[in-house]
Amino acid sequence: MKLVSNCIRYSMHGDPRKVLTLNTIAIDADIKPNEILVKWLASPINPLDINKIEGKYPLRPDYPATGGSEAVGIVENVGADIRSLHKGDHVISNSIYNSVWTQYDVLSEDAVLKVRSDLDVASASTLLINPPTAYIMLTEYVKLSPGDFVVQNSANSAVGRCVIQIASALGLKTINIVRDRPDIDALKKGLMSLGGDYVFTEEEFTKNNTKFIKTLPAPPRLALNGVGGRSAMVLCASLGHGGTVVTYGAMSKKPIEILSSSFIFKDLRAFGVAVGPWMQMHPEKAGHIMTVLQDMLVKGQLSPPPMEQVPMAQFATAMEKTLAGRNKKQLVLFHDDVSKEQCYKSKL
Amino acid sequence: MKLVSNCIRYSMHGDPRKVLTLNTIAIDADIKPNEILVKWLASPINPLDINKIEGKYPLRPDYPATGGSEAVGIVENVGADIRSLHKGDHVISNSIYNSVWTQYDVLSEDAVLKVRSDLDVASASTLLINPPTAYIMLTEYVKLSPGDFVVQNSANSAVGRCVIQIASALGLKTINIVRDRPDIDALKKGLMSLGGDYVFTEEEFTKNNTKFIKTLPAPPRLALNGVGGRSAMVLCASLGHGGTVVTYGAMSKKPIEILSSSFIFKDLRAFGVAVGPWMQMHPEKAGHIMTVLQDMLVKGQLSPPPMEQVPMAQFATAMEKTLAGRNKKQLVLFHDDVSKEQCYKSKL
Repeated sequence: MKLVSNCIRYSMHGDPRKVLTLNTIAIDADIKPNEILVKWLASPINPLDINKIEGKYPLRPDYPATGGSEAVGIVENVGADIRSLHKGDHVISNSIYNSVWTQYDVLSEDAVLKVRSDLDVASASTLLINPPTAYIMLTEYVKLSPGDFVVQNSANSAVGRCVIQIASALGLKTINIVRDRPDIDALKKGLMSLGGDYVFTEEEFTKNNTKFIKTLPAPPRLALNGVGGRSAMVLCASLGHGGTVVTYGAMSKKPIEILSSSFIFKDLRAFGVAVGPWMQMHPEKAGHIMTVLQDMLVKGQLSPPPMEQVPMAQFATAMEKTLAGRNKKQLVLFHDDVSKEQCYKSKL
Repeated sequence: MKLVSNCIRYSMHGDPRKVLTLNTIAIDADIKPNEILVKWLASPINPLDINKIEGKYPLRPDYPATGGSEAVGIVENVGADIRSLHKGDHVISNSIYNSVWTQYDVLSEDAVLKVRSDLDVASASTLLINPPTAYIMLTEYVKLSPGDFVVQNSANSAVGRCVIQIASALGLKTINIVRDRPDIDALKKGLMSLGGDYVFTEEEFTKNNTKFIKTLPAPPRLALNGVGGRSAMVLCASLGHGGTVVTYGAMSKKPIEILSSSFIFKDLRAFGVAVGPWMQMHPEKAGHIMTVLQDMLVKGQLSPPPMEQVPMAQFATAMEKTLAGRNKKQLVLFHDDVSKEQCYKSKL
């Protein structure tokens, strides 16, 4: 049986506004014993997706390639040999190397991760990348105790917002640095209401961090860097002796700068994390982390980022908005029946 | 009994050419039961000593302060309670926090480290800082196997030369980067003869490192950075996945720059080392390392850096030469009887 599936594809690397097309393909729904048929419901447009399309991510697809990485869906059918999944299970894409911008897909069992059925669409569709990035950085590089301070830049990014919430759930204190902007007071309030302990603009923190750090019971032990450049240097300068800095992004597109004296006299340690390879290298920990994060989401300790829902037919507009920046994350809905109400009020 | 001792002191931080004076003081040689009387023989002028005098090292002395950090000497007398040392023992200053530019000093037992009597003056007087810095970097941050590659900048520095020789003794391969200079060919030959496997100028390496690294059986697993700035970035770019960079100096006086992508996609780890605090924090390892290094020195696997000997009376000239750079390390001899012959031919 053939199933008609709309999908968003590209046949060469380049500007997503130019190389992406909305296609209709026929999926062979007569699946093999070791396959599953998934109906994808929704997928956010992430910076990673843009990098993959532009060819800036170390990954070379076969063409035509389907876009996307994260998605939430429902298992429509399972092959005779499949034991771990059943029709109706809620699943997410299990790897950033997947391609998910299609209404239906036939996949191997391990391409998806079964998620709790009480998780809403927005939370599930953004579970794969940012929450585990934040969780890994807060737990895997230095053993923190409740009351310890963590300092981060890019605090309003999707990862930064997860850091604030997960840190708060773990009893950690966060010092959050954001870029200045017209609505800075509202932003500060918003991050405090997520559980942030302090929020500063880059300028405020650069100017006053030495004085500010002295008002704390102890300097931060962990710095999380999503920006690079001088911003990383200021983060590191605020760390205490033996402090650790973990880099997960480079929004400034500049190399990380760290004072040599921080390394030599403060015994600083620096690491980087890419969540995809990390999860592949630590499968047991990965499973545990995804369970913990779903629990936090269902309990309301962690929430998805602010998102705008867009039907698949208006994908081009959603991509335009994403590339323009400063807009809410765009959540593409692949079927008409994934209504706003279903996403946020009823569960999947 | 009073003992006359010439010493080099300062009473305020500043330019060593201005603040240092040659004084004659009286040492009380009637030592207490827990004290030792040491006759210092020779001490090198290190960049560290200059930093301490200039006030650029995180250390605030009581004035008048005696200069110097490293020295070799002979135990002249021991107090009644001292068991670990005897008159005639050869000793070195045991900490970079010591002050040693004096002919005689009364010290506690733990201010010195007994060294082998078959170690020559030049080797013993430069044992405390640079050889253990090199050894710690080569052994403590990543477990290397014979045949593994290490890449370092500042390869002609005292630490860099120790790295080449210790790496060679451990069966490791070194890729050495130096600044270009008129006598570059002689320098390259010199570093190769110490055991270096490859020597490049900064310019050569920056231009060709990608191509060159591909000719190796595997990319370097460890990078040692004594320069900072862009030089560190090039070092890190040549590391393989999961590589480690250790910073011990900042000759360029610029912050370390590392590509965010090296951290994120290559799982790079970065550390810094300051040998003094490290040795204090790891006393058992420190003892073992000093034994291993003396063994290497006596076997000829490790040699002291090229040095010029200067009598104490000509200290000012030696300091001038040190500050001018590009001269041999200056080894100050505190007594007339530490002749050239005694230093290099007969042993201490």
